Amino acid sequence: MLEKLKEKVYEANMELQRKGLVIYTWGNVSEIDRETGLVVIKPSGVDYDTMKPEDMVVVDLEGNIVEGEYKPSTDTPTHLVMYKTYLNIGGVVHTHSEWATTFAQGGMSIPAFGTTHADYFYGDIPCTRDLTDEEISGEYEKETGNVIVETIGDKDPLEIPAIIVKNHGPFAWGKDGNSAVYNAVVLDKVAEMAYKTMTLNKDVKPVKQYLLDKHYLRKHGANAYYGQK
Amino acid sequence: MLEKLKEKVYEANMELQRKGLVIYTWGNVSEIDRETGLVVIKPSGVDYDTMKPEDMVVVDLEGNIVEGEYKPSTDTPTHLVMYKTYLNIGGVVHTHSEWATTFAQGGMSIPAFGTTHADYFYGDIPCTRDLTDEEISGEYEKETGNVIVETIGDKDPLEIPAIIVKNHGPFAWGKDGNSAVYNAVVLDKVAEMAYKTMTLNKDVKPVKQYLLDKHYLRKHGANAYYGQK
Amino acid sequence: MLEKLKEKVYEANMELQRKGLVIYTWGNVSEIDRETGLVVIKPSGVDYDTMKPEDMVVVDLEGNIVEGEYKPSTDTPTHLVMYKTYLNIGGVVHTHSEWATTFAQGGMSIPAFGTTHADYFYGDIPCTRDLTDEEISGEYEKETGNVIVETIGDKDPLEIPAIIVKNHGPFAWGKDGNSAVYNAVVLDKVAEMAYKTMTLNKDVKPVKQYLLDKHYLRKHGANAYYGQK
Amino acid sequence: MLEKLKEKVYEANMELQRKGLVIYTWGNVSEIDRETGLVVIKPSGVDYDTMKPEDMVVVDLEGNIVEGEYKPSTDTPTHLVMYKTYLNIGGVVHTHSEWATTFAQGGMSIPAFGTTHADYFYGDIPCTRDLTDEEISGEYEKETGNVIVETIGDKDPLEIPAIIVKNHGPFAWGKDGNSAVYNAVVLDKVAEMAYKTMTLNKDVKPVKQYLLDKHYLRKHGANAYYGQK
Repeated sequence: MLEKLKEKVYEANMELQRKGLVIYTWGNVSEIDRETGLVVIKPSGVDYDTMKPEDMVVVDLEGNIVEGEYKPSTDTPTHLVMYKTYLNIGGVVHTHSEWATTFAQGGMSIPAFGTTHADYFYGDIPCTRDLTDEEISGEYEKETGNVIVETIGDKDPLEIPAIIVKNHGPFAWGKDGNSAVYNAVVLDKVAEMAYKTMTLNKDVKPVKQYLLDKHYLRKHGANAYYGQK
Repeated sequence: MLEKLKEKVYEANMELQRKGLVIYTWGNVSEIDRETGLVVIKPSGVDYDTMKPEDMVVVDLEGNIVEGEYKPSTDTPTHLVMYKTYLNIGGVVHTHSEWATTFAQGGMSIPAFGTTHADYFYGDIPCTRDLTDEEISGEYEKETGNVIVETIGDKDPLEIPAIIVKNHGPFAWGKDGNSAVYNAVVLDKVAEMAYKTMTLNKDVKPVKQYLLDKHYLRKHGANAYYGQK
Repeated sequence: MLEKLKEKVYEANMELQRKGLVIYTWGNVSEIDRETGLVVIKPSGVDYDTMKPEDMVVVDLEGNIVEGEYKPSTDTPTHLVMYKTYLNIGGVVHTHSEWATTFAQGGMSIPAFGTTHADYFYGDIPCTRDLTDEEISGEYEKETGNVIVETIGDKDPLEIPAIIVKNHGPFAWGKDGNSAVYNAVVLDKVAEMAYKTMTLNKDVKPVKQYLLDKHYLRKHGANAYYGQK
Repeated sequence: MLEKLKEKVYEANMELQRKGLVIYTWGNVSEIDRETGLVVIKPSGVDYDTMKPEDMVVVDLEGNIVEGEYKPSTDTPTHLVMYKTYLNIGGVVHTHSEWATTFAQGGMSIPAFGTTHADYFYGDIPCTRDLTDEEISGEYEKETGNVIVETIGDKDPLEIPAIIVKNHGPFAWGKDGNSAVYNAVVLDKVAEMAYKTMTLNKDVKPVKQYLLDKHYLRKHGANAYYGQK
């Protein structure tokens, strides 16, 4: 079932490791097949070095295991909230990548300080509020998804395809699993440069709106002229 | 004697190098065979590049060499204090990994700032007090073990399986040598993110108890649901 | 057309990746053939992993595509301003390398703190002013070139062969594409050490003129005695 | 002439690159043959990737080229001052390694913050004074050696086998070229951890004398018990 998608999700997970975003069993990538409404996701706690495409788990949007020998990632309910809320999202990724997690631990959004940021994220990358004790002791992973949705508000999630979950770490997404991983890699690089900028210059100000618009729109707007499109 | 354990301890030591926690001859891993009460440990000052499984040294709990061509690690008495005090520990590791050693040099505990920390360490990772001049000029390595035990106090050592020895560096432990190394790797990553968090946000507060409980217990508690257990 | 130059520019672009200055499709190198007035440059948005020498694009100094299946880098107009203004420049490179971009995001010049800097850059590496809204919404990439030229002023561009474009990133140049890449690598290393120096010692002062002169001139002056010349 | 020594010095220079202390042609290692009073040193400005053992240059203690197709490193006069002043030194190395150079640029000594430092350096690693304008415009490289000697004063140079030359970078030494490189690697690691310690904890104090003595002497004292000696 969904063999090609399993292969693709497996490769997207392995890419996390190749790019240095994860160690051991940390991190997970999923992708949804919108026709069937089924989600393929990394199994929980399985090593990257021994993991195989057929180990990927298939779940439905309610989190029921449809196929798979393993239990799915514990973060599966967070992924599912994203897929159910945003129909234009096809892939979701969670990591504890070090620079984005630094902002999560500091409880801080990542300001847009330059065009590297603006090329991919149309504004600050927000940090969520604290989960309440009730949310933590209840359906914790689902509530994590809910607070992400609350933070995104009425924006298009693809305009800023990543978020910082406070005291936890980043989630990123995209049209599929690969683009979610791509955004997670860029997120960590952008977080790294924001950290360095803020520690170098305490009085630094975010980039002005004009430059933010220019760079985001030259890649993603109706008149985009970056790349070979 | 204990050939399988020597092979295992050798591999755990080599893993230290592969993970980038040590250079040259720095660092050492041991594991105890609880049936015989014998400990297998890295020889002192031998290069990782030329070290072989048969170079591992076998000592008893009083530090007598039972087998081995080489002298055991100078830190052996510290390891032995751990094994004698805590019967649920099977492996011990010492490194000068750069981020954990930074906290050692700064004389600071590593606060629990996020879920990456909470997934493995159930609270702050403590820093020991200074050794007294008498302790330093006496049985220094044994006293290092004693101050670790004093700092752990009446806690279960496996709930926070690492410590920062002031002005020195980290020790970590686990059920065997491999898990001790695993904890040493996670410790350094957690220390790295704590450093970055504290230099980014001077007013940062540790994670709240609810979230600490949730993450630690979802991996290690009676009702753990992370992984394939 | 210009097959050897395409090969050379391709290799210079690949060197950016090998030196860790770029990820994904970021960055671009060009070189000019002064006899024909034609410029060879990296195509826009093409992956380093699949890029081939024949994918390089040939443009004239007005930016018209003379040969090539792909669109040239979006930053081509910036490169062309450099070639038209400075006849002693043969290669130009743009990256988002992390340390130089940190200074760009902080809006700061890179002071000459030591001989590593002085060996290659004869003074501070300046940061441009903000582009105006009109410049951003007009011919943005060309205006980026103009503000670089404005910042260089009446200096010889080869004495300080790099610049920080505010909120954007570095440009570097040289007698050809290879030397531009070399300067971009040294720039990022110099920026890294400047960042670390400034965060370690808040009161640090730039190197004195005598030492700056000595090091720059022993490599680049009329009586240079470094190397095998 | 001195073929074995050339091979050894070549390997010591290559080790600089393997350990990540140098890029391009930066850095140089030499070793002296005390019987003949001849010094073998890296040629000036030759790439590590193409350098061969036979490219090493043989000079006498006055700096005359005795054998070699290339000019010796421009820093040769600094090396020679060291060999002439300290008869117990057999190898000298100079790098622009990033962490030690950070202290050079900041004009700061490296305090002994922990046992990693104390295992190799018996006290703070000092930073030299500024060279005067006369020293810079005169025999600059020789004066660099002189100011190193002035800074070491009446200490045994092997007790603290490295120094920070202000606004320039580190020199390290040892009984031969290999041990000089070893010390240069440890120096940069120690500098890295000192930087991180000082930026983490502004009020940090150096390690107390008792611990400094203990660690240095357990490796290097008359009763040393580290390693297999």
